Amino acid sequence: MAQHGIDTAIGLDLGGTAIKAGLVDRHGAVLFTHTVPTEADGGPDHVIGRMATLITRLVDEAKAASYRVAGVGIGAPGTLSRKDGMVISPPNLPGWQNVPVVRLISQATGLPTLLENDANNAALGEFHRGVGRGCSYMIMMTLGTGIGGGIIFGGKLWRGAFENAGEIGHTILVPGGRKCGCGQLGCLEAYASARATVARALQHMDEGATSSLRTILGSGAELTTKHIVESMTSGDALATDVWRETCRYLAIACINLQHLLNPERIVLAGGMSKAGPALLDVVVEEIGRLASKSLGDPPELRLAELSNDAGFIGSALSVFENGIAG
Amino acid sequence: MAQHGIDTAIGLDLGGTAIKAGLVDRHGAVLFTHTVPTEADGGPDHVIGRMATLITRLVDEAKAASYRVAGVGIGAPGTLSRKDGMVISPPNLPGWQNVPVVRLISQATGLPTLLENDANNAALGEFHRGVGRGCSYMIMMTLGTGIGGGIIFGGKLWRGAFENAGEIGHTILVPGGRKCGCGQLGCLEAYASARATVARALQHMDEGATSSLRTILGSGAELTTKHIVESMTSGDALATDVWRETCRYLAIACINLQHLLNPERIVLAGGMSKAGPALLDVVVEEIGRLASKSLGDPPELRLAELSNDAGFIGSALSVFENGIAG
Repeated sequence: MAQHGIDTAIGLDLGGTAIKAGLVDRHGAVLFTHTVPTEADGGPDHVIGRMATLITRLVDEAKAASYRVAGVGIGAPGTLSRKDGMVISPPNLPGWQNVPVVRLISQATGLPTLLENDANNAALGEFHRGVGRGCSYMIMMTLGTGIGGGIIFGGKLWRGAFENAGEIGHTILVPGGRKCGCGQLGCLEAYASARATVARALQHMDEGATSSLRTILGSGAELTTKHIVESMTSGDALATDVWRETCRYLAIACINLQHLLNPERIVLAGGMSKAGPALLDVVVEEIGRLASKSLGDPPELRLAELSNDAGFIGSALSVFENGIAG
Repeated sequence: MAQHGIDTAIGLDLGGTAIKAGLVDRHGAVLFTHTVPTEADGGPDHVIGRMATLITRLVDEAKAASYRVAGVGIGAPGTLSRKDGMVISPPNLPGWQNVPVVRLISQATGLPTLLENDANNAALGEFHRGVGRGCSYMIMMTLGTGIGGGIIFGGKLWRGAFENAGEIGHTILVPGGRKCGCGQLGCLEAYASARATVARALQHMDEGATSSLRTILGSGAELTTKHIVESMTSGDALATDVWRETCRYLAIACINLQHLLNPERIVLAGGMSKAGPALLDVVVEEIGRLASKSLGDPPELRLAELSNDAGFIGSALSVFENGIAG
């Protein structure tokens, strides 16, 4: 259906800190890409304007190269309605309440526009272009401040009956446990997200534990999981315990996914996955220790490959997957 | 493709105590049905013989009524290989190790034969003929001695990449918790199955708790969840606590299914579901207490409708679903 050139779509990954955008072909190859700060403090209108500017820039670049742009896919965080094209109340975008992103962007750009959960789009990107290649049943856990998830079954995104599937971070692993941001007690996210991992380390130090992490606190820097992994590598006992506990909770989540859904591959993505083998190897080890041998082999565990690009690539691919493209 | 009469299939539900069988049409209507004791102590050959006799009887009845029999579907417990048509090591069938059920039954009866997990077939039966009617995304939990599960997505049974999906009973809810028969610690089944519920009640009494359940133990009878529900109804505090705790674990399992898979409907089936509202209402109440309000409405919770018939009806329907029927 392309009049000339090859079919492309524009994908956006809207985050609290940055908006990443790219022109992508239907195989997920990235033709042009740009990243700008979100400037979320400016409020929804300001951010929508920045998104439209990015899109227009990519459209111009596409035209110059004779690519046909089929549409725009947007991945956004938090509660949203895909059907209504509306961002409802994302925790990391202050002032965003029921923002009709799809209508605003399609009006500003004249392009058909789709909205999808960012973790779903990231899973779609990894599935088609990253570590998911060659498999049909993949589940991705995005490990960052929170924990998101995306489920691919038989090559298709699994959204559930009401489009809220994949919220792995809010499955309860510890009945009556730590309070989660969602209001529940004992969610995976309340134990194994970057924020929860740091909180557990701080709590141990508040209770008097000695640790080289105190030097970081003393310097006034904000403690991150990167510091915890570094301290662990230098042999710090507290950092080792805290990180292994995080990996144990992630291992249990993987075991539960295995028994419930039996995927081929589970992918660890997001900021925490930058720890590399320090994450992957320990989670695999804990699965080996905790999973029943009689219930079948665990799925293959892998680190994401596309890093920050998975989101916008998946957003663009969602345009082709959902059929607004020719 | 029917030469004459209407298309039917024979479904079998192979249990440790009874074999239930029926002649079923492609809509799930039951035309003839028979139940015989399994006589599992007689060993695999004896039981296979009893299954073949049941099938032959139904084939004769079908012929007399001019129904065409497309094939045989068998639902069996425990570890099995659907692809190889083999029952591997079911806990409730002594002496069954790698029994090639499909080959033996098709040789004995001359009919195309299929093997499937019994909990999957029961879910298929409820989906097409029972409480699943009118929905597309249903998950069934079979609550008995153990806890099984069957997942229906978009009207199809979800088997996973390696055909082991649906093992809801072996998702871990309490890290480091009670030992499960599968070898893991803290499985749902180790807390909320009939066996685990009775074990928790016995443990409390061993520790000195007073309860009207002691009368049952004194009579020499084996304590069951039926006794626990009856004692609860008569106001027994221990029975009430134990049952509510069971319902709380089941509620957490439902919340996790909601966030992960977002089904329309969750169905409670199996022996424990005979408690009726004493089960359903308490689980719904605990979901209301424990689930995040901000993450969307919980799925509809329902009791199974077909009772013991779901298994063989689903087994028969699997013949049509899997395409060996015309």
